Amino acid sequence: MAVGLAAVGPVLGVPVSAGALAAPREFNAWPAPAARQAVKVTTVVDGLDHPWSVAFLPDGRLLVTERTGRLRTVQEGRLLPEPVAGLPPIEEVGQGGLLEVALHPDHARNRLVYISYAEPDPSGRGHRTAIARFRDGNGTAEGFEVLYRGTSDRTRHHFGSRIVFGTDGKLYFSIGDRGTDKRAQDPADSSGSILRLNDDGSIPGDNPFVGRPGHLPELYSMGNRNPQGLAVQPGTGLIWESEHGPQGGDEINIIRAGANYGWPVITYGRTYGLGLPIGEGTEKPGMVQPELYFVPSLALAGMTFYTGDALPAWKGDLIVALLGGGLVRLDVEDDRVVAAERLLEEELGRTRHVAQGPDGALYALVDEPAPGGRLVRIDPQ
Amino acid sequence: MAVGLAAVGPVLGVPVSAGALAAPREFNAWPAPAARQAVKVTTVVDGLDHPWSVAFLPDGRLLVTERTGRLRTVQEGRLLPEPVAGLPPIEEVGQGGLLEVALHPDHARNRLVYISYAEPDPSGRGHRTAIARFRDGNGTAEGFEVLYRGTSDRTRHHFGSRIVFGTDGKLYFSIGDRGTDKRAQDPADSSGSILRLNDDGSIPGDNPFVGRPGHLPELYSMGNRNPQGLAVQPGTGLIWESEHGPQGGDEINIIRAGANYGWPVITYGRTYGLGLPIGEGTEKPGMVQPELYFVPSLALAGMTFYTGDALPAWKGDLIVALLGGGLVRLDVEDDRVVAAERLLEEELGRTRHVAQGPDGALYALVDEPAPGGRLVRIDPQ
Repeated sequence: MAVGLAAVGPVLGVPVSAGALAAPREFNAWPAPAARQAVKVTTVVDGLDHPWSVAFLPDGRLLVTERTGRLRTVQEGRLLPEPVAGLPPIEEVGQGGLLEVALHPDHARNRLVYISYAEPDPSGRGHRTAIARFRDGNGTAEGFEVLYRGTSDRTRHHFGSRIVFGTDGKLYFSIGDRGTDKRAQDPADSSGSILRLNDDGSIPGDNPFVGRPGHLPELYSMGNRNPQGLAVQPGTGLIWESEHGPQGGDEINIIRAGANYGWPVITYGRTYGLGLPIGEGTEKPGMVQPELYFVPSLALAGMTFYTGDALPAWKGDLIVALLGGGLVRLDVEDDRVVAAERLLEEELGRTRHVAQGPDGALYALVDEPAPGGRLVRIDPQ
Repeated sequence: MAVGLAAVGPVLGVPVSAGALAAPREFNAWPAPAARQAVKVTTVVDGLDHPWSVAFLPDGRLLVTERTGRLRTVQEGRLLPEPVAGLPPIEEVGQGGLLEVALHPDHARNRLVYISYAEPDPSGRGHRTAIARFRDGNGTAEGFEVLYRGTSDRTRHHFGSRIVFGTDGKLYFSIGDRGTDKRAQDPADSSGSILRLNDDGSIPGDNPFVGRPGHLPELYSMGNRNPQGLAVQPGTGLIWESEHGPQGGDEINIIRAGANYGWPVITYGRTYGLGLPIGEGTEKPGMVQPELYFVPSLALAGMTFYTGDALPAWKGDLIVALLGGGLVRLDVEDDRVVAAERLLEEELGRTRHVAQGPDGALYALVDEPAPGGRLVRIDPQ
């Protein structure tokens, strides 16, 4: 399927000074990038059931998670019928199920694969986000090992949970507020947070809250509502995060050690339905402002910094998948967003994740039940 | 008031071998000590309102907490009408209020006094156990400083909270399960635990759960229902703990780093009222058995190791206050209880705490509302 340029407003082409960007900006007030790129969307694999994430293995295979619980393999452009064996049974539970898949930075040598998923609490009364790893055995998960289990909650919402490895080699991952918003401000609760572990699941001694009374040592940041995207920026090494707000109030944040992103005390969002205010307002000392916020919510999901050559105008940009449909491209310079545009809303529809392949192309996962769930490639037109 | 020997059973006088004591024993099955001591009870101060704890200052003054919120001074045998100034307002809330008072081991030089109390949560929806310290300014608390705040709960029960300084100079204190029993098994929750801090409120780097995912670094032990007594044993340096069970199941434990005492998974107690079983039974691998348990509950409260010369037969024994009335004397050899007797049930009534004065005499606090609340001395008859 070839599509034309997805215009969402006038091409302003006005570079914005750093000073003017000091305050957080609502997405719709943002100028569009000067350089645009017409793209087309090609389906690589269909027949997926609510695909959530994808990892590109060194031998050309792809691993794709389905929220319904199966880890699928794509080999030579074909979706293998048998899921990867050796995982525990994983069941879909509301927004949870099998979620993230990510490779260890040294995967080529150690074959380590990391996943996140919703796991039943042993009490049977709730679920929690679990992080596990195993070695890729080409169709089999070898040495499956749970590294981390988050705080349990009875709801079926806001599990997170993206995983990235920082330039420091540490494992960063996200857990949402589990539908109980006050958990995001509780430093003894893993919910509503970005967490940081060593690659074996142990706690780095330099984590920001290590040894602080009342604080879990794995916490890296807090006050994050439901972070469904994490991306490490090439060059700066900064960790960018996308976060679902309620009705309005989606955010793009840069995650810094020990910071509090404010949910549910401050937010640009409003309650679903009546649209009532939430918390204490939009700003508070000690709580970080977002880089960008979205009213109404576009339902920001997975994201990646695009570094390929296939789409030159997008190089260095942060591409964000939208459950609300399509993508957002954020033109980022250093640690600043300078322009933004929405793309491919109708062509992609509900998009869970976007990732760059080893071929330098950009791929996206369309979040539909089987057989409509698909992996697509985004090429220049 | 002089009373005779408070006999509660035959004086067996049979030394029990260590081997026979390996299994935990129910209090009523325990032999009475061979050497007994007739004692009398003398009121030192009355007019107290639910006294909870007492500290003996180097200049002869006594500090006595009243659960209703006032820190009282006893000077030259007289209860001063004005409470110590400089504390925040402390209100009685169910079993909470102003609870513990304890001196820093180096109090003679630094004048530091530590207290525990129930503090309202800022949300207004619950209370938590707080630990604070100040310098004794003879009627005024100087430099009042909150060192620790536990997890909040909406109930008004099970705040703990005794404070002792170990032979390692660290501050050990107890918090009950706050009436929500599963909290005692949650390592991200301060409730139902013994906690360990440096004397300034910071976390000792050698605490057993430091750097462990999902665990608060201040935890020292867990699975403790409502520990109302802590005492450091002279010689061994062991920390002994008394713990309220439900209907039956009060325990005496020795607190060891990182141990899990099992509440509410294992207990010798039963539910109030119907007397139904609780949890999974009385034993489980990985969970510590009590040194002694009590069925029915005597409501164990504060306790102390008696080291004075006034009551020679009691020297080295662990004396435990009973809200159920009077005292229990446990004849302890090294880390083993070898005999036990109940004392002064009718003479003392509901007893909150027992402590040794600098004069080598044993004192107890009778937990009654004013004017019945009193500090008494226990002397040889």
